[in-house]
Amino acid sequence: MPHSKSNNSRLTQLFPIIGWLKSYTRQEFNSDLFAGIITAILLVPQGIAYAIMAGLPPQLGLYASILPPVLYALFGTSRTLSVGPVSIAAIMIASALTAPEISVLGNPVQSALILSAESGAIMLLMALLRMGGLVNFISHPVLTGFTSGAALLIIGSQLPQLFGLKTPSCGFNVSCYSHYFSGIVSATLFIGLIAIGLLVFFGKPLVLMLKNSGMQSYLIAAISKCGPLLTIILTTLAVDYFDLTSQQNVAVVGKVPSGFPVLNMDLSPIEKWSVLLPYSGFIALIAYVESVAIAKVTANFRGEKIFPNQELIALGVANVAAAISGGMPVAGGFSRTMVNFSAGARTQMAMLIAAGILALAVIFFSPLFENIPKTALAAIILVAIVPLVKLNDIAHTWRYDRGDGIAEIATLLGVLVYGIEEGITLGIILTLISHLRKTSQPHIAVVGRIPGTEHYRNIKRHNVETWSHLLLLRVDESITFANINYIEEFINAELRQQPDIKHVVLIFTSISDIDTTALEVLENLNHTLQTAKMTLHISEAKGPVLDKLEKTDFLKQLQPGKAFFHTEDAVRELAKG
Amino acid sequence: MPHSKSNNSRLTQLFPIIGWLKSYTRQEFNSDLFAGIITAILLVPQGIAYAIMAGLPPQLGLYASILPPVLYALFGTSRTLSVGPVSIAAIMIASALTAPEISVLGNPVQSALILSAESGAIMLLMALLRMGGLVNFISHPVLTGFTSGAALLIIGSQLPQLFGLKTPSCGFNVSCYSHYFSGIVSATLFIGLIAIGLLVFFGKPLVLMLKNSGMQSYLIAAISKCGPLLTIILTTLAVDYFDLTSQQNVAVVGKVPSGFPVLNMDLSPIEKWSVLLPYSGFIALIAYVESVAIAKVTANFRGEKIFPNQELIALGVANVAAAISGGMPVAGGFSRTMVNFSAGARTQMAMLIAAGILALAVIFFSPLFENIPKTALAAIILVAIVPLVKLNDIAHTWRYDRGDGIAEIATLLGVLVYGIEEGITLGIILTLISHLRKTSQPHIAVVGRIPGTEHYRNIKRHNVETWSHLLLLRVDESITFANINYIEEFINAELRQQPDIKHVVLIFTSISDIDTTALEVLENLNHTLQTAKMTLHISEAKGPVLDKLEKTDFLKQLQPGKAFFHTEDAVRELAKG
Repeated sequence: MPHSKSNNSRLTQLFPIIGWLKSYTRQEFNSDLFAGIITAILLVPQGIAYAIMAGLPPQLGLYASILPPVLYALFGTSRTLSVGPVSIAAIMIASALTAPEISVLGNPVQSALILSAESGAIMLLMALLRMGGLVNFISHPVLTGFTSGAALLIIGSQLPQLFGLKTPSCGFNVSCYSHYFSGIVSATLFIGLIAIGLLVFFGKPLVLMLKNSGMQSYLIAAISKCGPLLTIILTTLAVDYFDLTSQQNVAVVGKVPSGFPVLNMDLSPIEKWSVLLPYSGFIALIAYVESVAIAKVTANFRGEKIFPNQELIALGVANVAAAISGGMPVAGGFSRTMVNFSAGARTQMAMLIAAGILALAVIFFSPLFENIPKTALAAIILVAIVPLVKLNDIAHTWRYDRGDGIAEIATLLGVLVYGIEEGITLGIILTLISHLRKTSQPHIAVVGRIPGTEHYRNIKRHNVETWSHLLLLRVDESITFANINYIEEFINAELRQQPDIKHVVLIFTSISDIDTTALEVLENLNHTLQTAKMTLHISEAKGPVLDKLEKTDFLKQLQPGKAFFHTEDAVRELAKG
Repeated sequence: MPHSKSNNSRLTQLFPIIGWLKSYTRQEFNSDLFAGIITAILLVPQGIAYAIMAGLPPQLGLYASILPPVLYALFGTSRTLSVGPVSIAAIMIASALTAPEISVLGNPVQSALILSAESGAIMLLMALLRMGGLVNFISHPVLTGFTSGAALLIIGSQLPQLFGLKTPSCGFNVSCYSHYFSGIVSATLFIGLIAIGLLVFFGKPLVLMLKNSGMQSYLIAAISKCGPLLTIILTTLAVDYFDLTSQQNVAVVGKVPSGFPVLNMDLSPIEKWSVLLPYSGFIALIAYVESVAIAKVTANFRGEKIFPNQELIALGVANVAAAISGGMPVAGGFSRTMVNFSAGARTQMAMLIAAGILALAVIFFSPLFENIPKTALAAIILVAIVPLVKLNDIAHTWRYDRGDGIAEIATLLGVLVYGIEEGITLGIILTLISHLRKTSQPHIAVVGRIPGTEHYRNIKRHNVETWSHLLLLRVDESITFANINYIEEFINAELRQQPDIKHVVLIFTSISDIDTTALEVLENLNHTLQTAKMTLHISEAKGPVLDKLEKTDFLKQLQPGKAFFHTEDAVRELAKG
């Protein structure tokens, strides 16, 4: 079997799990088991909370925590990324489900599953087109602005839950708010505040206390990560014991169906797929970019490598799996991944264990989820999300690079004022425009011949021969829509300064592409020159550029202008007359 | 008065009208008078038609044809551009006014005036920021795809008018359509078809006939441009004479108030300004880009020059004037400008005359507009708009440049399926991404020292000294979010190949900027290298780059890595070992 090794490595490339499973040790399993349990403890409340935040029944978050991470474990190149429901995707799902053109179609669960399927399919398509590099085209300032804005939106959506209120619909009507706030359910607020207190206490204060007591650090990590679960258990017990649902009107999660999900949902309405497509596109983009960013952070700590294109495959498959198993769209979650990593996870085995625990929870414990108060879930989300509002980073960017600062603030404000998709689009466009502005002025040299040679050099730097009716120009970059206007202006300015010119020769040595816009402007320029009794020529065009030009009638339009092979040929013919 | 000349030229720069008025001749006036009358004959039906298309009362189109072109004549750099209501802006206004978040606020006339004011203000702001160059960042394929898509949308919106039908609301329900089409008003359709026949006849066929009869060409031009007005007059007379409004249910324009507009509309609701802002942004962008493109076409014919930034001022002032005088947003119109130009207009005097005629028409003839049948207006729009669907151009682009072809088709489909704003956004993003993909792989050279000198050159091209524990890299472009990942990969690949390396020196000779994203990646890279017991250094950084880096603690993070002034200093210190 001479080709077995290359087959093997190709198989490992597609299923990175094979790479680490072959040399998997008992010791690694112990670490993974511990991390898996800790992460599962976090996954249960997060799954329920994010599903409710997205406006969906809780089981869509739980189901999304079972099959998708298993599939990611098979295909993903990160060893510690925790794939499942995430807050940013949840708010994007909420934004899609409440959009008028989508809510009018009804059945939000069906819409959510179509979002999962579509965003998975989009990622797989992007992988096929090898667009993993796309991650490079969203700059960090845009990402930070977006995350901060989305986090503020999430805070805005969760605060009413904490107070036991509905989302306000008062707009700018101030007097309406006094009526609105009179609806606060005090028992709900009380539970919510207790929950926040507990969660904050389980953060730094408890860790410090336990450290001072001399406890071992892995135990400290384990205990401090139980904050969310303990909060849920205590508040649910309180609701149960005091019968707060009926006595005090405290809102709870409600019935969660037991057992494994069965896909019996009809996902066929084409019309829905079409209106959801733009939302799926944004979810796919953000899920991918955020996941890879998080995966890179933990991979850097251990010197591992993330392959962006393989990540697209893994996340795509995970999202399709979410759709099939009745789950909401998934991505790599920042807080969960950091918990998983710091709890000592060595490989994706930790996530397989966590998924197993979630499956058991769904089968045996879902009746227990019924009385979880929504205010406690809001508290968990709020405590997790507040650190994502990075106003400090924004001030820092503003001082370092004004253009990036503007893009960052515009993204944040765009997300807040116009919505998730609009904000990120605005940010991307602003960044790209400011980038293009910087790169739209290519180097252009007026050249002449070094006497006695066939070499042509910049007249500003070298002592060269020139001819008063002949303009030789070398453009040192491919000609595109972004720089063609600058080039045109440059040529026109030269022509105004040198009224004797009869022939303009563009030297194409550094040009490897001419796009459609540039071609059209060159055609217009040629036309204008001909009207003014001047002739445009080109020289030294590379093969692919000439091939492309020959598909058009540009070379015919140039006549009597020519495409010279060497600049020297052009000078010999044109310098005479 | 020693500075009078520079004052004068500055004044002429702001008011280009001064430039041509000073040497204005009787002969030029004769040409302008003729062209002005012809253009006015076109402006009346276009103004009414585009206002109705936008979902507004007809006078908003008429008012937009009076004050705005006068202001443009004062500030604009094009001598023949005809500024007023245009079809593409009209469909964008319709899209804004029917958006759920805007239609819910009521009072479409108020919304339209706010759109005028806002898009004017945005253009003035862009002029202030000297963003005239922005026109370069929308590629021709995106513009063609957008125009074709918008033209198809306009055709779709006008066909029902031609049949005397309302816009259908059947969606995918096929059986509903048979009921829908039973509502066709046959008299309306009959008038519409006659109108189309007249308009088509007044195009090429009539011109050929008159040419063959030996008529003088300026008279031919004048007669052939009267098609729309004649169509309006004949169909209106028919409606009047046969009382088709009440007898046959033919829809007409309805009452148009007489006399000059008085601004008594309250434009104060802040909330409306905020929801309309994104639409105003798109209208400003497209109005500006299309106007400059059209202005350039006619300017090129006569060797005149268009100043993009001054155009922003002129169009911005014209739109603010539209808002003040009760008009819809304005731009330079393609068909009208070509008519104006080919009718012999020499200067903006032609447009001043046209505006005067429009003012007279509004004062004295507006009662005559009441019985203009809407189907005749639809016919005028349809005949004008069909040539803008350039499927041929799209096929051509597809063959010439695949990336541009994809952007063009995506823009067209985006406009049709998701709407005007979404389509153009998609097109811009696709173009920018494909552009960035081409430019995101900067040239990076591993360099060594030419023996006996202090010159460092590419090891691939020159015979140079190297040191096994020292990696010298020269990046030949500014470091930004678009190329930093490629650079990082390049460095990592070098490090994998040369395991002895202890020091990495980045040579900054060609780097004039490092953006926020690139800085963060460099910080992470430095952190990773330090973990692997390697040290990162930089050398030859230019002043502004160092200044920027000193605002951060990057240089501190590098320690023990240093910022060397010369690469030679770095080698002297690090080559020892």
